[in-house]
Amino acid sequence: MNILDELSKYKRIVDLELEKVMPKEDFPQKHIFEAMCYSIFAGGKRLRPVLTLKTSELISGSYEDAMQIALGIEMIHTYSLIHDDLPAMDNDDFRRGKPTNHKVFGEDIAILAGDGLLNLAYETMLNTIPLNSRDYVKYILAIKEVGKAAGVFGMIGGQTVDIKTNEKSFNEERLMFIHNNKTSALIEASIVSGAMVAGANEEQIEHLREYGRSIGLCYQIRDDILDKVGDKSLLGKNTGSDEINHKLTYLSLFGMDNAIIKIQSLYNEAIESLSIFDKERVRFFKELASYLVHRES
Amino acid sequence: MNILDELSKYKRIVDLELEKVMPKEDFPQKHIFEAMCYSIFAGGKRLRPVLTLKTSELISGSYEDAMQIALGIEMIHTYSLIHDDLPAMDNDDFRRGKPTNHKVFGEDIAILAGDGLLNLAYETMLNTIPLNSRDYVKYILAIKEVGKAAGVFGMIGGQTVDIKTNEKSFNEERLMFIHNNKTSALIEASIVSGAMVAGANEEQIEHLREYGRSIGLCYQIRDDILDKVGDKSLLGKNTGSDEINHKLTYLSLFGMDNAIIKIQSLYNEAIESLSIFDKERVRFFKELASYLVHRES
Repeated sequence: MNILDELSKYKRIVDLELEKVMPKEDFPQKHIFEAMCYSIFAGGKRLRPVLTLKTSELISGSYEDAMQIALGIEMIHTYSLIHDDLPAMDNDDFRRGKPTNHKVFGEDIAILAGDGLLNLAYETMLNTIPLNSRDYVKYILAIKEVGKAAGVFGMIGGQTVDIKTNEKSFNEERLMFIHNNKTSALIEASIVSGAMVAGANEEQIEHLREYGRSIGLCYQIRDDILDKVGDKSLLGKNTGSDEINHKLTYLSLFGMDNAIIKIQSLYNEAIESLSIFDKERVRFFKELASYLVHRES
Repeated sequence: MNILDELSKYKRIVDLELEKVMPKEDFPQKHIFEAMCYSIFAGGKRLRPVLTLKTSELISGSYEDAMQIALGIEMIHTYSLIHDDLPAMDNDDFRRGKPTNHKVFGEDIAILAGDGLLNLAYETMLNTIPLNSRDYVKYILAIKEVGKAAGVFGMIGGQTVDIKTNEKSFNEERLMFIHNNKTSALIEASIVSGAMVAGANEEQIEHLREYGRSIGLCYQIRDDILDKVGDKSLLGKNTGSDEINHKLTYLSLFGMDNAIIKIQSLYNEAIESLSIFDKERVRFFKELASYLVHRES
């Protein structure tokens, strides 16, 4: 398996399905459709929805039932990027090599485009609940899992603490809270929701949750490393912004050597958490963990 | 029945239930909890959730099943006010006689508080779906009704067109689109979702939808009238802002006399749509329509 080919293949599947659910009619409110589509189709890696589909496939052999939840998760991820980039937040002009949403559509429409994507995420996920089958429970539990990860006890909570943390109040506990909530929570929920919809048992869910937590943190620390030593052209954004903004990261707290050691240990934990599954069937997840440790973009 | 007493009584019920679901723990992200609670408990009339409870009561005799959906609707309404007040949107400093959310907590936290309330609305509504009863379908349909009204085919769509409409592109069709989507859609969904959860039949739902549409538009036009001739101290905000901002309203398009005629005709339609119900049981709804026509705040 070539992990990049496999990621591309599933990214294309997600892209095609997003094309189907994103509104683009010539309606009076078409400006908001354009702004939402601009960011949704701005060339993201689709890591989260691909994880949802792949986890569903691992458990049940099929990703069909998990599709709308995967799309909802990508919409939630995208809305959070639009709002994070706003002048009142991180004030970023570029994202994935393209001008950020508010730079193209204005701040007012960018705020509404974020709101619209968050709302559409729930509309999309709700649409997948069957109205004539006892099976509905697993969908509701999966959507609740996503809801918690996206909300004030997850991503929004992490972003709040990130904003409210300064050099004085900064410590390892806060850093872990920020990373676990701002980044890992939605990655973890991507994996767990896919497993739930596919009918995973509790042991499987707990092991996959562990895997998600490990690669989520891994992903974030690698992000911080790339911000310091990454290639601007590969990343599609300026590097060094953490240092310029005096942003407190794992790197600034523990230094590069310890960050690399930490990533390696998280990688080992991720692999270990997969031990209850058949080796052949979790190849994708192992190779993905390795890819995240070494990625350059 | 004294309509103000009845509204106060149900407002208190909603307030008490909101106290139970709003997060306020001393967690690292407590800043976001404070900001969300600030706006949720800023003294709103609770018109929408009261309508949900009252409609549920009309159909089934009880409002219990509709409670979490009512709370979710109030959270959605509140988030939309926080985001509408932002400097990039209407740039309002006061709301209900108090400084707006971003004036107290900063723009970054205000954006997140809005996001947090929208997400919490869905978490709250999802929590009310029973996991062991065929009854779940009516809850899902009710939440979808709210979701559509809140999203880009409802409130967010209306707000987008409002922002993108200038004196040149303004006409009656656009005005109706803005009013029907920005204001009426969520009021209509408040009523319809309460009816759905209570087990209303299609005829009842359609008549209540008609009622909601009429009073929703009535509410908006009365708002525009109050902005011109209302009492600042009763309203808790500055008047005349529509004129200062060259805002295009029913009033600016058709003048005061026609606005008053329109409100009266909407009132008649609202009363007519209640004709299929037992007279005694819809007294609240009739008196509410009358109150909305004449309200001073």
